[in-house]
Amino acid sequence: MPSINENFLKLEKNYLFINIAKKVNAYKEANPDADIIRMGIGDVTQPIAKCVVDAMKKGADEMGVKETFKGYEDSGTGYDFLKEAVSGYYNSFGVTVSPDEIRINDGAKADCGNIVDIFGDDNVVLITDPAYPVYVDTNLMNGRTVIYADSNEENGFAAMPDESVHADLIYLCSPNNPTGSAYTASQLKTWIDYALKNKAIIIYDAAYEAFITEDIPRSIFAVEGARQCAIEMCSLSKTAGFTGMRCGYTVIPKELSVIASNGTEVSISDLWGRREGSKFNGVSYPVQCAAAAVFSEEGLKQTKENIKYYQQNAKVISAALDELGIKYTGGKNSPYIWLKCPNGMGSWEFFDKLLNEANVVGTPGAGFGKNGEGWFRLTAFGDAERTKEAMERFKKMKF
Amino acid sequence: MPSINENFLKLEKNYLFINIAKKVNAYKEANPDADIIRMGIGDVTQPIAKCVVDAMKKGADEMGVKETFKGYEDSGTGYDFLKEAVSGYYNSFGVTVSPDEIRINDGAKADCGNIVDIFGDDNVVLITDPAYPVYVDTNLMNGRTVIYADSNEENGFAAMPDESVHADLIYLCSPNNPTGSAYTASQLKTWIDYALKNKAIIIYDAAYEAFITEDIPRSIFAVEGARQCAIEMCSLSKTAGFTGMRCGYTVIPKELSVIASNGTEVSISDLWGRREGSKFNGVSYPVQCAAAAVFSEEGLKQTKENIKYYQQNAKVISAALDELGIKYTGGKNSPYIWLKCPNGMGSWEFFDKLLNEANVVGTPGAGFGKNGEGWFRLTAFGDAERTKEAMERFKKMKF
Repeated sequence: MPSINENFLKLEKNYLFINIAKKVNAYKEANPDADIIRMGIGDVTQPIAKCVVDAMKKGADEMGVKETFKGYEDSGTGYDFLKEAVSGYYNSFGVTVSPDEIRINDGAKADCGNIVDIFGDDNVVLITDPAYPVYVDTNLMNGRTVIYADSNEENGFAAMPDESVHADLIYLCSPNNPTGSAYTASQLKTWIDYALKNKAIIIYDAAYEAFITEDIPRSIFAVEGARQCAIEMCSLSKTAGFTGMRCGYTVIPKELSVIASNGTEVSISDLWGRREGSKFNGVSYPVQCAAAAVFSEEGLKQTKENIKYYQQNAKVISAALDELGIKYTGGKNSPYIWLKCPNGMGSWEFFDKLLNEANVVGTPGAGFGKNGEGWFRLTAFGDAERTKEAMERFKKMKF
Repeated sequence: MPSINENFLKLEKNYLFINIAKKVNAYKEANPDADIIRMGIGDVTQPIAKCVVDAMKKGADEMGVKETFKGYEDSGTGYDFLKEAVSGYYNSFGVTVSPDEIRINDGAKADCGNIVDIFGDDNVVLITDPAYPVYVDTNLMNGRTVIYADSNEENGFAAMPDESVHADLIYLCSPNNPTGSAYTASQLKTWIDYALKNKAIIIYDAAYEAFITEDIPRSIFAVEGARQCAIEMCSLSKTAGFTGMRCGYTVIPKELSVIASNGTEVSISDLWGRREGSKFNGVSYPVQCAAAAVFSEEGLKQTKENIKYYQQNAKVISAALDELGIKYTGGKNSPYIWLKCPNGMGSWEFFDKLLNEANVVGTPGAGFGKNGEGWFRLTAFGDAERTKEAMERFKKMKF
């Protein structure tokens, strides 16, 4: 009989969002007429920009004509037209990343999870807590030791390295999911210096960079030293509403390498390429056409409108919390508002109260790690009217 | 410094098709005017059926309208409309698979490679040789022991189990890539009985099932006992020209389970679901719309036309080889023709000769395993005129 990967048995039984869905479904069954407003899972609601839809349709049409039909991509790492568009996008905020350092994928989650394949299981993995569950779970699946850097009220939910602790792999997410806090250049420099001292690699999740409004880095590669120690993952999910379209990108600097136990220098890009060559066949051509259109002048313009729409929601949420005197972070450089549950309530306790009394669904902070207990995440990705309605209900609740 | 997964260092340096691409590119650089005909990588050339393109465009349009916009899929395992269509397709050839046993993916390669994650690294993995390199490489990446069942001239390239050998995981591909041979129901029953006796799990790759013309199983689930020991992976790549569209499906029977070391019964479907929940976010909605259209009446009709086109190519290739007295398998239930290199030539020797003298690219059998040495794969996926031209050149070669 095949043995299973027993590390799976040590994982939390259910994925956070599956748990939430179960609770919401149970509530709906018991209260079929309830008008539930979802501000839980970080999913967008605004439609895809017209020029992006048109580009996808043009790509689909090309697939229907022999002369323009596309089969397997030669490289499986993305078409040049899209890699060049992503490179140009980085340039637009002052970061130089060459097209051949960019790999197109079907969303940041897959690469974020699959990157564990290329590293040894003896690595010490440092993850800020609270964090997106994928970082922790995918490392636990490989039986790795995970240590945590606390993000908490004291440090404004911006964990910084503890110089007395060693790590080999470091996961950072900025603007942060779930806390909405975002690192400044000087904070990132501290992390980079720590990584270089430890010869560690930073896996940097920049999925929310498009929401940055202040003068802080939109890419870790905006900060000196990052090319020697970092991989960056980003996605069009939140930038351009691609959660159902599925396209993202990973940047691996050419010079990033490690020394194997036999003394050979191994390029991280080559190693990841070998992994992907055996387990991935590239992103759908029409999806890549759509993604490239996001980075066109018209695409960026239309996309920015959607982001402004969500930012307005964030202001509505923030204003309501200010009115209630509830403490929170995020909302400014992020679509997430991370609030302290009133009256010392626990995260799931507050989840139930909000669901039962206001029919509003949010995400319990405890689902993101121990420092999330007592905190709660709301997203600004909803419909504007529904967000206003949710915050009106919120304000009427008795705490 | 992070340690790498050192198993990667034990892999062949380059993936087979990357090696071929390098050789072809070098030849093209030296001979810029050469008119090269590609019959190497198993990529299709006929465009996507019109009704499938239309369905994708409709899906794209829906993404551009708020009321019909789709974000994350709730389950990430595929929309019901597509799972029901796949289930109906199975029914059409007499196999019962329920929609909730079907998981939609971005192509069989990803699931085929990623399935290794859920099993322990101490498993003995049995792979028929020659084989699609993904089976071997993805297991070697996890440091597993791989043993082989020989497919060779003596057994008509249809390896059968050796009852004296134990295995925990078994990879079968029928119709086979690269040899084009296909198992009969009775041969599959022998494999299933062997798997049940060993309490092993069969990972069955049915990617070429649409090419079956004889009365043999199109799914392992057509054979009794398979639900207790098999997972099936299939893809629209070869069925409907989806190599650049990216959509496939994996079938995991509900009752398939193993006993973990702590004595608990673990469902394979749950285990895989946990893996995918952390590392995958579903397939692009418009791609799923396109895939569902493949299984509509019109879609199946248009798709069958393409398959007939390729089957005609297979006849052209077979006829030329018959004329030359070259031995081969495949072509009948498969788009692949697996030929014995003339005059005892080695696979790569014949590759070079065919490239240099006829400007035809094929795939050296040695790239698929030791039993492939001295054999060579041609694909029927090309343009009809070009396939004829290739075989005319082939016939003019001096062996």
